[in-house]
Amino acid sequence: MSSSNYGGEGAVFPKGKKVTNEYFNGAVWLHMLVDNDNTWNSPMGNVTFEPRARNNWHIHPGGQILLVTEGKGFYKEEGKPVRMLEEGDVVKIAPKVKHWHGATSDSWFTHIAISTNVQQGDTEWLSPVTDKEYNNIQLDF
Amino acid sequence: MSSSNYGGEGAVFPKGKKVTNEYFNGAVWLHMLVDNDNTWNSPMGNVTFEPRARNNWHIHPGGQILLVTEGKGFYKEEGKPVRMLEEGDVVKIAPKVKHWHGATSDSWFTHIAISTNVQQGDTEWLSPVTDKEYNNIQLDF
Repeated sequence: MSSSNYGGEGAVFPKGKKVTNEYFNGAVWLHMLVDNDNTWNSPMGNVTFEPRARNNWHIHPGGQILLVTEGKGFYKEEGKPVRMLEEGDVVKIAPKVKHWHGATSDSWFTHIAISTNVQQGDTEWLSPVTDKEYNNIQLDF
Repeated sequence: MSSSNYGGEGAVFPKGKKVTNEYFNGAVWLHMLVDNDNTWNSPMGNVTFEPRARNNWHIHPGGQILLVTEGKGFYKEEGKPVRMLEEGDVVKIAPKVKHWHGATSDSWFTHIAISTNVQQGDTEWLSPVTDKEYNNIQLDF
């Protein structure tokens, strides 16, 4: 599907359940594909954001990979311009880099998030991305 | 897409280039999403098999995850019935388990392959899956 308003139902993997923790701003759905364990050390989940939804600033001690499967979104590293994301994009998030990701203001957004080297530690969640921060993003193009 | 004859072009990630090594039987295409490195330790690629194409028996010292994005395929572990795969399926391949995967006889097949813990060693490639083996598979249902 190429619509920006698909709502996550048309993606390859299930939309899953609405996330209820405090690390997201706006409605986000998560379907775990592989749970956290010490055999693969690579938990992965399908994450769907409604328009404007995003996660807090955070850090992965072992890094993470995002595979974008639908919609349009943003990836922001501290101190860098925002990167616009769309279907087929890959984001390599280095260990210890402070960042956030989420949907654009006019599109739903779905990615597979693959956490890597999780034996190096749990995700460190930081402050929310305020509306002011979100509204003032500068695109990298 | 739900067609069994999509040929890989309709998938989310690029079909990539035809694989020319000796570890596959039949035509297979590979597009690397994340290269092998010692930062993420999780090389991943989009792999598309024509009908009947499959890889040789092989072993991943650190394991691998398959995320099926299109078509129909088989996953076979030594000594176990074949598992039929379709869009949305996830296969968790434990470290050191001898196995192969590929397309069914009447469908193309695409999966994302995520190798895990690759610091534990390179894939060990073994003998081809003969036509006799392929034709005699017993399904797990």
